[in-house]
Amino acid sequence: MKNCVFCAIADGSAPARIVYSDDDVVAFLDIRPIRPGHTLVIPREHHADLGELPAELGAKMFAAAQRIGTAMRRAPIDADGANLIINDGRAAFQTVFHSHIHVVPRRHGDRINLAKGMLLRRDSAADTTAERLRVALGAAVEGR
Amino acid sequence: MKNCVFCAIADGSAPARIVYSDDDVVAFLDIRPIRPGHTLVIPREHHADLGELPAELGAKMFAAAQRIGTAMRRAPIDADGANLIINDGRAAFQTVFHSHIHVVPRRHGDRINLAKGMLLRRDSAADTTAERLRVALGAAVEGR
Repeated sequence: MKNCVFCAIADGSAPARIVYSDDDVVAFLDIRPIRPGHTLVIPREHHADLGELPAELGAKMFAAAQRIGTAMRRAPIDADGANLIINDGRAAFQTVFHSHIHVVPRRHGDRINLAKGMLLRRDSAADTTAERLRVALGAAVEGR
Repeated sequence: MKNCVFCAIADGSAPARIVYSDDDVVAFLDIRPIRPGHTLVIPREHHADLGELPAELGAKMFAAAQRIGTAMRRAPIDADGANLIINDGRAAFQTVFHSHIHVVPRRHGDRINLAKGMLLRRDSAADTTAERLRVALGAAVEGR
């Protein structure tokens, strides 16, 4: 869809740190991460929200998010777990209307870092974080 | 699994307000809801976390959660959107180790009620809420 930043990332016309990619789904680092490694999983096709998203595509999106959340525990990014979050609708704090799943790596006792992360929302070593996730996922994606 | 409260709900030996049920998945109201209508979607089979959950079963769980999140907007429970949340691992605040998706109905401007809900965690009209969700889902499930 025109003027949709996630469509632009999916078709390669906007830059992003891609960590996973297949025919239906793309995953990339959130540019304003709550924690380093905070990843967004999107369908390539534009669907504003869960009401519009075909169930088969939702399943593929979720499968990728599950893989990424699990890989985070193996990647050297200090994760002991992950939150998978969908904000569906403006009332639920959705801000980009191209449906997406947040995958946020979590570490034991990270409450204070999480609170800080919600304010700061940056990762000064994002390129390294992306590379570590890509390696853990074992996915063959173009580096960019 | 023995001593797993979600397994007991899935096999009917523990009570719950079921809102959706099929061969693979059960969804019921959280007994300590953040907001009225706060639902948990679980696989019938016991899998502690996303690392253990077979991808096909994860996809079914997600499909149910998507259906429920979408139905919440139609149900007369004052929802304009929903958050879908998985806390995977103790570090991510998982407390019951039978993998599950939270589906939390959200309403425009409900921040204060959400904050209250996180403290109070109850719904004095839970039976009505469950019935409304069941109707919106159009699912034929045993009332209990």
